[in-house]
Amino acid sequence: MVAEILSVGTELLLGSIINTNAAFASLELAKIGVSVYSQSTVGDNRGRLTSALERAFDKNGNADVVITIGGLGPTLDDITKEVAAEFFGRGMKIHEESMQRIRDRFNGRPMPVNVERNALVPEDATIFLNDNGAAPGICIEKNGKMIIMLPGPPHEFEPMIKNQIIPFLRTKTDGIFFSRTLRILGVAESKAEFMLKDLIEAQTNPTIAPYAKVGEVHIRLTASAENETAANTLINPIAEEIYRRLGPSIYGEDETDLPEAVINLLKANNHTLAVAESCTGGLIASELVSVAGCSAVLREGFVTYSNEAKINRLGVSGEILKNHGAVSAETAAAMAEGAAKVSGASIGLSITGIAGPDGGTPEKPAGLVFIGIKINGQPTETAKFNALGNRNEIRARSAKQALDMLRLKLENNMQA
Amino acid sequence: MVAEILSVGTELLLGSIINTNAAFASLELAKIGVSVYSQSTVGDNRGRLTSALERAFDKNGNADVVITIGGLGPTLDDITKEVAAEFFGRGMKIHEESMQRIRDRFNGRPMPVNVERNALVPEDATIFLNDNGAAPGICIEKNGKMIIMLPGPPHEFEPMIKNQIIPFLRTKTDGIFFSRTLRILGVAESKAEFMLKDLIEAQTNPTIAPYAKVGEVHIRLTASAENETAANTLINPIAEEIYRRLGPSIYGEDETDLPEAVINLLKANNHTLAVAESCTGGLIASELVSVAGCSAVLREGFVTYSNEAKINRLGVSGEILKNHGAVSAETAAAMAEGAAKVSGASIGLSITGIAGPDGGTPEKPAGLVFIGIKINGQPTETAKFNALGNRNEIRARSAKQALDMLRLKLENNMQA
Repeated sequence: MVAEILSVGTELLLGSIINTNAAFASLELAKIGVSVYSQSTVGDNRGRLTSALERAFDKNGNADVVITIGGLGPTLDDITKEVAAEFFGRGMKIHEESMQRIRDRFNGRPMPVNVERNALVPEDATIFLNDNGAAPGICIEKNGKMIIMLPGPPHEFEPMIKNQIIPFLRTKTDGIFFSRTLRILGVAESKAEFMLKDLIEAQTNPTIAPYAKVGEVHIRLTASAENETAANTLINPIAEEIYRRLGPSIYGEDETDLPEAVINLLKANNHTLAVAESCTGGLIASELVSVAGCSAVLREGFVTYSNEAKINRLGVSGEILKNHGAVSAETAAAMAEGAAKVSGASIGLSITGIAGPDGGTPEKPAGLVFIGIKINGQPTETAKFNALGNRNEIRARSAKQALDMLRLKLENNMQA
Repeated sequence: MVAEILSVGTELLLGSIINTNAAFASLELAKIGVSVYSQSTVGDNRGRLTSALERAFDKNGNADVVITIGGLGPTLDDITKEVAAEFFGRGMKIHEESMQRIRDRFNGRPMPVNVERNALVPEDATIFLNDNGAAPGICIEKNGKMIIMLPGPPHEFEPMIKNQIIPFLRTKTDGIFFSRTLRILGVAESKAEFMLKDLIEAQTNPTIAPYAKVGEVHIRLTASAENETAANTLINPIAEEIYRRLGPSIYGEDETDLPEAVINLLKANNHTLAVAESCTGGLIASELVSVAGCSAVLREGFVTYSNEAKINRLGVSGEILKNHGAVSAETAAAMAEGAAKVSGASIGLSITGIAGPDGGTPEKPAGLVFIGIKINGQPTETAKFNALGNRNEIRARSAKQALDMLRLKLENNMQA
């Protein structure tokens, strides 16, 4: 099956929004073996939208399905539904269940002008109810071709693709594709490819595809098979071989991101955590709190950007700060120890560094970061790290590095 | 002038990379008045790339310039230069200056196979030397139409667009465009449009374009004029009128985001700040620390997700927690007061809420958030807020809400 992604919205053409939806959809489609040959973006313009649909379905475009993103809202700019309905020769009607949902959302409060237009859909359509917004997803079909229209806000679009459109398209495709993604930290993409070269070159089913993410590499194994069990039988031996080669660098699989992997390890080991942050300024705590259920293990966080806060809150001694500086292994160690002690957590994780652009020196340049880990009953450990990039890249990379250092320690402790 | 953005790369179609380049280029082009009617992405495929060029320049596409992104590298996949040269009937030759730069980069070390292919360019081309990589940018022209080919890695692409392509295109366009962006919080896009309806409908020069961001609306005013002074003469009266209508909701202009606006207001008022966060878990502190120079005003942050931390760190009384609950105006007030008192900051800002998806009740559903502000010498204020979305949207929106509440208080204090 061939799909084309057609994003609709003048704000994309003006560069005021980055199109994350096209990549998200393409990735999910690739996992079930649907090929995307073209992504395109047009403005809120009837003529251009119609031409784009014509082109997608013509001999060159060769699409079986066009997935449009955006332009489903209630304003006059939102023309996707009308243009698509006209393209397939359909009238429009109100979808009662969506209408009721919209009324329920407002729960008696006054509804904005035109909000009912969200429930206006082409006749004879498959409707995908929207759990996160007002506009439902819509599929219309004609002569074996489909137009699937989805809302643009990513928090509406992403769950709809994942939970509704992918299962729907699975019913329309022959064979089934399943994939498993191994998430790797601390190994560059080129190195990972080199270490898996023979596997990648010999790949048939499953396919093996490495993707570079910010500071991470993901390896996706995709198998085509009769059912999930048969797919896993194909995927598992290759996954095991990759674990043999890259094991300690693989922190999680599929949707498990690094903060969640750390929270899971803390829970499994009955640990509690306190975090003391200087240059990251609350970023590590915030990433941990992004995981639902973190309260079982996260005692508290200290954002001790200033020396006073390091002294008063964490008990870092003025002497350490004076002799070694706020950005030093000694300060990182004292911060980690202080965070654990003050909070009563069994683990203290600390980070101190120079996020830049100012504040660096030849000896301690921007990007220099020290991480400290104090685990109850074990000596404090520290690590030095040089992060690349601008202020916020340095902060993001060093937060990731600190969480990964904690992950590796917890995994090693389990094996010991 | 009309431009089309044509991204080239199978990795984009597989969803392994998010296309930030297209948005970056579109934004820079909009600033100088170049219209982008279409963005498209094709794989590393001769036929599809040629069709895309044909379409961009035909009567429908109507482009004066096609900007291709990617596919300039040395591997056999990298076909953009050859396809474009053939499209305009040009041969290829080595660009000696680029060749020399490549040799200099390797500085005697062995060069990878084919690396010289980076210096292979179409005949009779304008070359843009690449300060951040091996492949130069290239422009070829024929019958008043241009193809500009640029390298794909964002750290090569972005400076080349900004420093070389935009000035180059300015020489090809009549007049000069300047723009000014007003950043608005707390007013929905549809309401902002309604409040500015007559201005938007009467717009000629400057143009007035509203953009919806997450929880924000940006209004960009773009004027075409002989020079910057003349442009400002056109823009200023409209900007002043928008300030009259939306004044308190405009928190900043151009690149100034909300955390920076808050930091600037704190500095201007000689205030220092401490932040106490429950549901946002360090997000507010982290956003403030993303602003270079925040240390002048940010005393410290408390991530007090647990009741124990609220009691032990901020001195919130067990009675308040028991009688009103952790998510209540009373707890928010006590947290703000505690943060200011414990840290010695002149302002304490607090947030407590239910981020979900679990933990909500009919009386206190997920998304319910209380914000507290204690300013030295003034009574503590609290506000209640219902945030929509999933766990992380609730956290992001409530962090924004808390910062905006502080901004408005500081602005009102200045006027009082």
